[in-house]
Amino acid sequence: MSHEELSPTERSTVRRGKHRARSERAELHEVLDNALLCHVGFTVSGHPRVLPTAFARVDETMYLHGSTGSRLLREAANGTEMCVAVTLLDGVVYARATAHNSVNYRSAVIHGRPFAVTDPEAKWSALRAITEHLAPGSWEHARHPDRRELAGTAVVGLDLAEASVKTREGDPGDTPEDVAEDRVWAGVLPLHSYWGTPRPSSEQPRRRPVPEHVSTRRTP
Amino acid sequence: MSHEELSPTERSTVRRGKHRARSERAELHEVLDNALLCHVGFTVSGHPRVLPTAFARVDETMYLHGSTGSRLLREAANGTEMCVAVTLLDGVVYARATAHNSVNYRSAVIHGRPFAVTDPEAKWSALRAITEHLAPGSWEHARHPDRRELAGTAVVGLDLAEASVKTREGDPGDTPEDVAEDRVWAGVLPLHSYWGTPRPSSEQPRRRPVPEHVSTRRTP
Repeated sequence: MSHEELSPTERSTVRRGKHRARSERAELHEVLDNALLCHVGFTVSGHPRVLPTAFARVDETMYLHGSTGSRLLREAANGTEMCVAVTLLDGVVYARATAHNSVNYRSAVIHGRPFAVTDPEAKWSALRAITEHLAPGSWEHARHPDRRELAGTAVVGLDLAEASVKTREGDPGDTPEDVAEDRVWAGVLPLHSYWGTPRPSSEQPRRRPVPEHVSTRRTP
Repeated sequence: MSHEELSPTERSTVRRGKHRARSERAELHEVLDNALLCHVGFTVSGHPRVLPTAFARVDETMYLHGSTGSRLLREAANGTEMCVAVTLLDGVVYARATAHNSVNYRSAVIHGRPFAVTDPEAKWSALRAITEHLAPGSWEHARHPDRRELAGTAVVGLDLAEASVKTREGDPGDTPEDVAEDRVWAGVLPLHSYWGTPRPSSEQPRRRPVPEHVSTRRTP
Protein backbone atom coordinates (compact mmCIF):
# COMPACT_ATOMS: atom_id res chain seq x y z
CA MET A 1 0.00 0.00 0.00
CA SER A 2 1.24 3.44 -0.87
CA HIS A 3 1.76 5.93 1.90
CA GLU A 4 0.96 9.29 0.37
CA GLU A 5 0.62 11.82 3.12
CA LEU A 6 -2.88 13.07 3.93
CA SER A 7 -2.18 16.78 3.99
CA PRO A 8 -0.85 17.03 7.52
CA THR A 9 -1.77 20.66 8.05
CA GLU A 10 -2.14 21.88 11.61
CA ARG A 11 -5.85 21.27 11.96
CA SER A 12 -6.06 18.05 9.98
CA THR A 13 -3.27 16.40 11.94
CA VAL A 14 -4.66 13.93 14.41
CA ARG A 15 -3.71 15.28 17.78
CA ARG A 16 -4.63 12.39 20.04
CA GLY A 17 -4.11 8.72 19.36
CA LYS A 18 -1.48 9.30 16.71
CA HIS A 19 -0.97 5.54 16.57
CA ARG A 20 -4.45 5.39 15.06
CA ALA A 21 -3.83 7.98 12.38
CA ARG A 22 -3.63 6.46 8.93
CA SER A 23 -1.86 8.58 6.39
CA GLU A 24 -3.02 6.98 3.21
CA ARG A 25 -5.17 8.27 0.40
CA ALA A 26 -6.44 4.72 -0.22
CA GLU A 27 -7.77 4.54 3.29
CA LEU A 28 -9.49 7.92 2.98
CA HIS A 29 -11.13 6.77 -0.22
CA GLU A 30 -12.21 3.49 1.34
CA VAL A 31 -13.92 5.25 4.26
CA LEU A 32 -15.76 7.63 1.95
CA ASP A 33 -16.73 4.98 -0.56
CA ASN A 34 -18.20 2.73 2.13
CA ALA A 35 -20.31 5.35 3.90
CA LEU A 36 -23.75 6.43 2.75
CA LEU A 37 -23.98 9.67 4.72
CA CYS A 38 -21.59 12.33 5.90
CA HIS A 39 -22.00 15.01 8.58
CA VAL A 40 -21.24 18.53 7.41
CA GLY A 41 -20.22 21.16 9.94
CA PHE A 42 -20.20 24.89 9.23
CA THR A 43 -20.69 28.14 11.04
CA VAL A 44 -23.68 30.44 10.58
CA SER A 45 -23.39 33.88 12.18
CA GLY A 46 -20.87 32.42 14.59
CA HIS A 47 -23.04 29.46 15.53
CA PRO A 48 -21.94 25.90 14.72
CA ARG A 49 -24.24 23.69 12.63
CA VAL A 50 -24.01 20.03 11.76
CA LEU A 51 -26.22 18.32 9.20
CA PRO A 52 -26.23 14.80 7.76
CA THR A 53 -26.36 14.49 3.99
CA ALA A 54 -25.62 12.21 1.05
CA PHE A 55 -22.45 12.60 -0.99
CA ALA A 56 -20.14 10.93 -3.46
CA ARG A 57 -16.40 10.86 -4.03
CA VAL A 58 -14.88 11.22 -7.49
CA ASP A 59 -11.09 11.01 -7.47
CA GLU A 60 -9.95 13.67 -4.99
CA THR A 61 -13.22 15.56 -4.76
CA MET A 62 -16.28 15.02 -2.61
CA TYR A 63 -19.63 16.18 -4.00
CA LEU A 64 -22.74 17.22 -2.09
CA HIS A 65 -26.11 18.18 -3.51
CA GLY A 66 -29.40 19.55 -2.31
CA SER A 67 -32.16 22.01 -2.91
CA THR A 68 -30.97 25.43 -4.05
CA GLY A 69 -33.05 26.74 -1.14
CA SER A 70 -31.28 24.75 1.57
CA ARG A 71 -29.04 26.61 3.98
CA LEU A 72 -26.28 24.03 3.68
CA LEU A 73 -26.08 24.27 -0.10
CA ARG A 74 -26.30 28.04 -0.14
CA GLU A 75 -23.49 28.35 2.38
CA ALA A 76 -21.42 25.76 0.58
CA ALA A 77 -21.90 27.39 -2.82
CA ASN A 78 -20.66 30.64 -1.27
CA GLY A 79 -17.44 28.94 -0.23
CA THR A 80 -18.17 28.95 3.50
CA GLU A 81 -15.54 26.93 5.30
CA MET A 82 -16.78 23.44 6.12
CA CYS A 83 -15.70 20.37 8.03
CA VAL A 84 -17.09 17.04 6.87
CA ALA A 85 -16.99 13.89 8.99
CA VAL A 86 -17.54 10.42 7.55
CA THR A 87 -17.75 7.67 10.13
CA LEU A 88 -18.06 3.89 9.90
CA LEU A 89 -18.76 2.08 13.17
CA ASP A 90 -17.34 -1.43 13.09
CA GLY A 91 -17.96 -2.72 16.60
CA VAL A 92 -18.08 -2.14 20.32
CA VAL A 93 -15.00 -2.91 22.40
CA TYR A 94 -15.75 -4.50 25.78
CA ALA A 95 -12.70 -3.98 27.96
CA ARG A 96 -11.81 -5.43 31.36
CA ALA A 97 -12.22 -1.93 32.79
CA THR A 98 -15.08 0.35 31.75
CA ALA A 99 -12.61 3.20 31.27
CA HIS A 100 -11.12 1.22 28.38
CA ASN A 101 -14.40 0.42 26.65
CA SER A 102 -14.25 1.79 23.14
CA VAL A 103 -15.48 1.38 19.60
CA ASN A 104 -13.79 0.06 16.50
CA TYR A 105 -14.30 2.49 13.68
CA ARG A 106 -13.02 4.10 10.50
CA SER A 107 -13.34 7.87 10.49
CA ALA A 108 -12.45 10.57 7.97
CA VAL A 109 -12.55 14.31 8.54
CA ILE A 110 -12.20 16.74 5.64
CA HIS A 111 -11.64 20.49 5.93
CA GLY A 112 -12.09 23.00 3.16
CA ARG A 113 -14.16 25.57 1.32
CA PRO A 114 -16.61 23.98 -1.11
CA PHE A 115 -17.02 25.36 -4.60
CA ALA A 116 -20.23 25.60 -6.59
CA VAL A 117 -20.43 23.14 -9.47
CA THR A 118 -22.30 25.08 -12.15
CA ASP A 119 -20.81 23.88 -15.43
CA PRO A 120 -23.66 21.76 -16.88
CA GLU A 121 -21.46 18.80 -17.74
CA ALA A 122 -19.64 18.80 -14.40
CA LYS A 123 -22.94 19.17 -12.53
CA TRP A 124 -24.45 16.27 -14.48
CA SER A 125 -21.44 14.06 -13.69
CA ALA A 126 -21.57 14.96 -10.00
CA LEU A 127 -25.30 14.23 -9.79
CA ARG A 128 -24.74 10.90 -11.50
CA ALA A 129 -21.95 10.12 -9.01
CA ILE A 130 -24.12 11.00 -6.00
CA THR A 131 -27.02 8.95 -7.41
CA GLU A 132 -24.76 5.97 -8.06
CA HIS A 133 -23.17 6.20 -4.64
CA LEU A 134 -26.50 6.22 -2.79
CA ALA A 135 -28.45 3.94 -5.10
CA PRO A 136 -26.11 2.12 -7.50
CA GLY A 137 -27.74 1.22 -10.79
CA SER A 138 -30.52 3.73 -10.50
CA TRP A 139 -28.91 6.26 -12.85
CA GLU A 140 -29.43 3.75 -15.68
CA HIS A 141 -32.80 2.64 -14.38
CA ALA A 142 -34.70 5.77 -13.42
CA ARG A 143 -35.60 9.01 -15.17
CA HIS A 144 -32.77 11.54 -15.34
CA PRO A 145 -33.15 15.07 -13.98
CA ASP A 146 -35.12 17.40 -16.23
CA ARG A 147 -34.43 21.09 -16.76
CA ARG A 148 -36.56 22.17 -13.81
CA GLU A 149 -35.09 19.60 -11.41
CA LEU A 150 -31.58 20.61 -12.45
CA ALA A 151 -32.37 24.27 -11.84
CA GLY A 152 -33.68 23.47 -8.36
CA THR A 153 -30.65 21.39 -7.40
CA ALA A 154 -27.37 22.85 -6.21
CA VAL A 155 -24.16 20.85 -6.37
CA VAL A 156 -20.92 21.67 -4.58
CA GLY A 157 -17.50 20.07 -4.60
CA LEU A 158 -14.99 19.84 -1.78
CA ASP A 159 -11.34 19.09 -2.43
CA LEU A 160 -10.02 16.19 -0.36
CA ALA A 161 -6.59 17.79 -0.06
CA GLU A 162 -6.97 18.57 3.62
CA ALA A 163 -8.17 15.40 5.27
CA SER A 164 -7.32 13.02 8.06
CA VAL A 165 -8.27 9.41 8.67
CA LYS A 166 -8.38 7.74 12.03
CA THR A 167 -9.24 4.13 12.69
CA ARG A 168 -9.41 1.72 15.59
CA GLU A 169 -9.54 -2.03 15.20
CA GLY A 170 -8.81 -5.12 17.23
CA ASP A 171 -8.62 -5.95 20.89
CA PRO A 172 -9.43 -3.87 23.96
CA GLY A 173 -6.54 -1.74 25.17
CA ASP A 174 -6.61 -2.82 28.79
CA THR A 175 -3.84 -2.20 31.28
CA PRO A 176 -1.32 -5.04 31.77
CA GLU A 177 -2.59 -5.34 35.35
CA ASP A 178 -6.19 -5.90 34.26
CA VAL A 179 -5.07 -8.40 31.61
CA ALA A 180 -2.97 -10.29 34.14
CA GLU A 181 -5.79 -10.40 36.68
CA ASP A 182 -8.04 -11.97 34.04
CA ARG A 183 -11.22 -11.38 36.02
CA VAL A 184 -13.77 -10.83 33.22
CA TRP A 185 -14.46 -11.48 29.56
CA ALA A 186 -13.06 -8.90 27.19
CA GLY A 187 -13.39 -8.64 23.46
CA VAL A 188 -15.12 -7.05 20.51
CA LEU A 189 -18.75 -7.28 19.41
CA PRO A 190 -18.64 -6.54 15.67
CA LEU A 191 -21.39 -4.43 14.14
CA HIS A 192 -22.57 -5.21 10.63
CA SER A 193 -25.30 -3.93 8.40
CA TYR A 194 -27.41 -5.54 5.73
CA TRP A 195 -30.12 -4.66 3.26
CA GLY A 196 -33.58 -5.88 4.15
CA THR A 197 -36.29 -7.01 1.75
CA PRO A 198 -36.99 -4.38 -0.93
CA ARG A 199 -40.43 -2.82 -0.36
CA PRO A 200 -42.10 -1.66 -3.57
CA SER A 201 -43.85 1.68 -3.52
CA SER A 202 -47.48 1.30 -2.48
CA GLU A 203 -48.39 3.07 -5.71
CA GLN A 204 -46.52 0.46 -7.71
CA PRO A 205 -48.39 -2.34 -9.48
CA ARG A 206 -47.43 -5.69 -7.96
CA ARG A 207 -46.39 -7.31 -11.23
CA ARG A 208 -43.12 -5.42 -11.60
CA PRO A 209 -40.18 -7.48 -10.29
CA VAL A 210 -37.53 -5.91 -8.08
CA PRO A 211 -34.73 -4.96 -10.45
CA GLU A 212 -31.36 -6.61 -10.06
CA HIS A 213 -29.51 -3.46 -9.02
CA VAL A 214 -31.77 -3.35 -5.96
CA SER A 215 -32.23 -7.07 -5.21
CA THR A 216 -28.52 -7.88 -5.47
CA ARG A 217 -27.11 -4.77 -3.82
CA ARG A 218 -23.96 -5.63 -1.96
CA THR A 219 -24.09 -5.47 1.84
CA PRO A 220 -22.72 -2.13 3.00
CA MET B 1 -48.33 10.17 21.91
CA SER B 2 -47.82 13.53 23.55
CA HIS B 3 -46.87 16.49 21.43
CA GLU B 4 -44.64 18.60 23.62
CA GLU B 5 -42.91 21.18 21.51
CA LEU B 6 -39.20 20.70 20.80
CA SER B 7 -37.97 24.19 21.58
CA PRO B 8 -38.81 25.82 18.28
CA THR B 9 -36.18 28.53 18.51
CA GLU B 10 -35.04 30.16 15.31
CA ARG B 11 -32.08 27.91 14.63
CA SER B 12 -33.60 24.62 15.81
CA THR B 13 -36.69 25.04 13.69
CA VAL B 14 -36.57 22.82 10.66
CA ARG B 15 -36.53 25.17 7.74
CA ARG B 16 -37.04 22.80 4.86
CA GLY B 17 -39.34 19.82 4.74
CA LYS B 18 -41.48 21.03 7.59
CA HIS B 19 -43.82 18.11 6.92
CA ARG B 20 -41.01 15.90 8.19
CA ALA B 21 -40.43 17.78 11.40
CA ARG B 22 -41.51 15.85 14.47
CA SER B 23 -42.13 17.93 17.51
CA GLU B 24 -42.10 15.33 20.19
CA ARG B 25 -39.74 14.74 23.08
CA ALA B 26 -40.41 11.00 22.84
CA GLU B 27 -39.15 10.95 19.30
CA LEU B 28 -36.02 12.90 20.23
CA HIS B 29 -35.32 10.42 23.01
CA GLU B 30 -35.92 7.48 20.70
CA VAL B 31 -33.40 8.76 18.15
CA LEU B 32 -30.75 9.37 20.81
CA ASP B 33 -31.36 6.10 22.61
CA ASN B 34 -31.03 4.06 19.41
CA ALA B 35 -27.81 5.64 18.13
CA LEU B 36 -24.35 4.62 19.29
CA LEU B 37 -22.45 7.68 18.07
CA CYS B 38 -23.16 11.36 17.64
CA HIS B 39 -21.35 14.00 15.60
CA VAL B 40 -20.34 17.09 17.54
CA GLY B 41 -19.79 20.37 15.72
CA PHE B 42 -18.04 23.36 17.22
CA THR B 43 -15.92 26.28 16.15
CA VAL B 44 -12.22 26.65 16.93
CA SER B 45 -10.70 30.04 16.15
CA GLY B 46 -13.45 30.58 13.60
CA HIS B 47 -12.96 27.21 11.91
CA PRO B 48 -15.70 24.56 12.00
CA ARG B 49 -14.91 21.14 13.41
CA VAL B 50 -16.95 17.95 13.48
CA LEU B 51 -16.01 14.88 15.48
CA PRO B 52 -17.80 11.58 16.10
CA THR B 53 -18.05 10.43 19.69
CA ALA B 54 -20.00 8.22 22.10
CA PHE B 55 -22.68 9.65 24.36
CA ALA B 56 -25.65 8.83 26.55
CA ARG B 57 -28.97 10.47 27.30
CA VAL B 58 -30.32 10.77 30.85
CA ASP B 59 -33.73 12.45 31.01
CA GLU B 60 -33.27 15.80 29.24
CA THR B 61 -29.48 15.84 29.23
CA MET B 62 -26.97 14.35 26.83
CA TYR B 63 -23.56 13.38 28.25
CA LEU B 64 -20.23 13.17 26.43
CA HIS B 65 -16.91 12.02 27.84
CA GLY B 66 -13.31 11.83 26.78
CA SER B 67 -9.73 12.43 27.74
CA THR B 68 -9.18 15.65 29.66
CA GLY B 69 -6.55 16.38 27.01
CA SER B 70 -8.90 16.17 24.03
CA ARG B 71 -9.80 19.36 22.22
CA LEU B 72 -13.48 18.46 22.10
CA LEU B 73 -13.77 17.93 25.84
CA ARG B 74 -11.72 21.00 26.71
CA GLU B 75 -13.87 23.19 24.47
CA ALA B 76 -17.05 21.61 25.78
CA ALA B 77 -16.04 22.01 29.43
CA ASN B 78 -15.44 25.69 28.71
CA GLY B 79 -19.01 26.06 27.50
CA THR B 80 -18.15 26.53 23.83
CA GLU B 81 -21.31 26.49 21.77
CA MET B 82 -21.89 23.13 20.13
CA CYS B 83 -24.23 21.48 17.67
CA VAL B 84 -24.73 17.74 18.00
CA ALA B 85 -26.22 15.59 15.25
CA VAL B 86 -27.53 12.08 15.86
CA THR B 87 -28.54 10.21 12.73
CA LEU B 88 -30.13 6.83 12.11
CA LEU B 89 -30.21 5.67 8.49
CA ASP B 90 -33.18 3.37 7.88
CA GLY B 91 -33.07 2.77 4.15
CA VAL B 92 -32.45 3.99 0.64
CA VAL B 93 -35.38 5.31 -1.38
CA TYR B 94 -35.31 4.35 -5.06
CA ALA B 95 -37.59 6.75 -6.90
CA ARG B 96 -38.89 6.69 -10.48
CA ALA B 97 -36.73 9.77 -11.11
CA THR B 98 -33.18 10.07 -9.77
CA ALA B 99 -33.96 13.59 -8.53
CA HIS B 100 -36.40 12.00 -6.07
CA ASN B 101 -34.04 9.35 -4.75
CA SER B 102 -33.69 9.81 -1.02
CA VAL B 103 -33.04 8.08 2.27
CA ASN B 104 -35.33 7.12 5.10
CA TYR B 105 -33.87 8.31 8.35
CA ARG B 106 -34.38 9.60 11.86
CA SER B 107 -32.26 12.61 12.68
CA ALA B 108 -31.86 14.78 15.78
CA VAL B 109 -29.91 18.02 16.04
CA ILE B 110 -29.20 19.61 19.41
CA HIS B 111 -27.82 23.11 19.98
CA GLY B 112 -26.37 24.41 23.21
CA ARG B 113 -23.42 25.17 25.43
CA PRO B 114 -22.20 22.08 27.30
CA PHE B 115 -21.37 22.29 31.00
CA ALA B 116 -18.57 20.48 32.80
CA VAL B 117 -19.77 17.67 35.05
CA THR B 118 -17.35 17.81 37.97
CA ASP B 119 -19.43 16.81 40.99
CA PRO B 120 -18.08 13.31 41.78
CA GLU B 121 -21.48 11.69 42.11
CA ALA B 122 -22.87 13.32 38.96
CA LYS B 123 -19.71 12.43 37.01
CA TRP B 124 -19.92 8.81 38.20
CA SER B 125 -23.57 8.59 37.12
CA ALA B 126 -22.81 10.09 33.72
CA LEU B 127 -19.92 7.70 33.13
CA ARG B 128 -22.14 4.79 34.09
CA ALA B 129 -24.79 6.04 31.67
CA ILE B 130 -22.29 6.39 28.81
CA THR B 131 -20.87 2.93 29.56
CA GLU B 132 -24.32 1.37 29.68
CA HIS B 133 -25.39 3.09 26.48
CA LEU B 134 -22.38 1.88 24.50
CA ALA B 135 -21.93 -1.51 26.14
CA PRO B 136 -25.00 -2.42 28.20
CA GLY B 137 -24.21 -4.69 31.12
CA SER B 138 -20.53 -3.87 31.23
CA TRP B 139 -20.83 -1.46 34.16
CA GLU B 140 -21.78 -4.44 36.35
CA HIS B 141 -19.32 -6.75 34.64
CA ALA B 142 -16.06 -4.83 34.28
CA ARG B 143 -13.79 -2.90 36.62
CA HIS B 144 -15.05 0.58 37.50
CA PRO B 145 -12.90 3.67 36.94
CA ASP B 146 -10.18 4.18 39.53
CA ARG B 147 -9.02 7.53 40.88
CA ARG B 148 -6.45 8.05 38.13
CA GLU B 149 -8.84 7.11 35.31
CA LEU B 150 -11.48 9.44 36.76
CA ALA B 151 -8.97 12.29 36.91
CA GLY B 152 -8.03 11.72 33.27
CA THR B 153 -11.62 11.65 32.05
CA ALA B 154 -13.69 14.75 31.42
CA VAL B 155 -17.48 14.59 31.32
CA VAL B 156 -19.78 17.26 29.94
CA GLY B 157 -23.54 17.58 29.81
CA LEU B 158 -25.68 19.23 27.15
CA ASP B 159 -29.26 20.23 27.85
CA LEU B 160 -31.70 18.88 25.28
CA ALA B 161 -33.89 21.98 25.54
CA GLU B 162 -32.95 23.26 22.10
CA ALA B 163 -33.38 20.36 19.73
CA SER B 164 -35.11 19.37 16.54
CA VAL B 165 -36.02 16.01 15.10
CA LYS B 166 -36.55 15.27 11.44
CA THR B 167 -37.53 11.94 9.95
CA ARG B 168 -38.39 10.46 6.59
CA GLU B 169 -40.13 7.15 6.15
CA GLY B 170 -42.15 5.35 3.53
CA ASP B 171 -42.52 5.53 -0.21
CA PRO B 172 -40.61 7.57 -2.78
CA GLY B 173 -42.01 11.05 -3.33
CA ASP B 174 -42.27 10.89 -7.10
CA THR B 175 -44.24 13.31 -9.23
CA PRO B 176 -47.79 12.25 -10.17
CA GLU B 177 -46.63 12.16 -13.81
CA ASP B 178 -43.83 9.68 -13.08
CA VAL B 179 -46.18 7.55 -10.99
CA ALA B 180 -48.78 7.54 -13.75
CA GLU B 181 -46.23 6.62 -16.40
CA ASP B 182 -45.19 3.61 -14.30
CA ARG B 183 -42.01 2.99 -16.26
CA VAL B 184 -39.70 1.60 -13.58
CA TRP B 185 -39.64 -0.09 -10.21
CA ALA B 186 -39.71 2.26 -7.24
CA GLY B 187 -39.53 1.49 -3.57
CA VAL B 188 -37.41 1.35 -0.45
CA LEU B 189 -34.45 -0.86 0.36
CA PRO B 190 -34.40 -1.00 4.17
CA LEU B 191 -31.06 -0.89 5.96
CA HIS B 192 -30.63 -2.90 9.15
CA SER B 193 -27.73 -3.62 11.44
CA TYR B 194 -26.85 -6.61 13.56
CA TRP B 195 -24.20 -7.74 16.01
CA GLY B 196 -21.74 -10.27 14.68
CA THR B 197 -20.07 -13.06 16.61
CA PRO B 198 -18.31 -11.79 19.75
CA ARG B 199 -14.54 -12.01 19.34
CA PRO B 200 -12.69 -12.56 22.61
CA SER B 201 -9.53 -10.58 23.19
CA SER B 202 -6.49 -12.45 21.89
CA GLU B 203 -5.02 -12.09 25.37
CA GLN B 204 -8.05 -13.82 26.85
CA PRO B 205 -7.88 -17.48 27.87
CA ARG B 206 -10.23 -19.55 25.71
CA ARG B 207 -12.12 -21.11 28.62
CA ARG B 208 -14.08 -17.99 29.57
CA PRO B 209 -17.57 -18.01 28.01
CA VAL B 210 -19.00 -14.91 26.34
CA PRO B 211 -21.12 -13.23 29.02
CA GLU B 212 -24.84 -12.91 28.49
CA HIS B 213 -24.85 -9.11 28.27
CA VAL B 214 -22.65 -9.45 25.17
CA SER B 215 -24.03 -12.65 23.60
CA THR B 216 -27.67 -11.58 23.91
CA ARG B 217 -27.28 -7.91 23.06
CA ARG B 218 -30.34 -6.69 21.25
CA THR B 219 -29.94 -5.79 17.58
CA PRO B 220 -29.44 -2.05 17.27
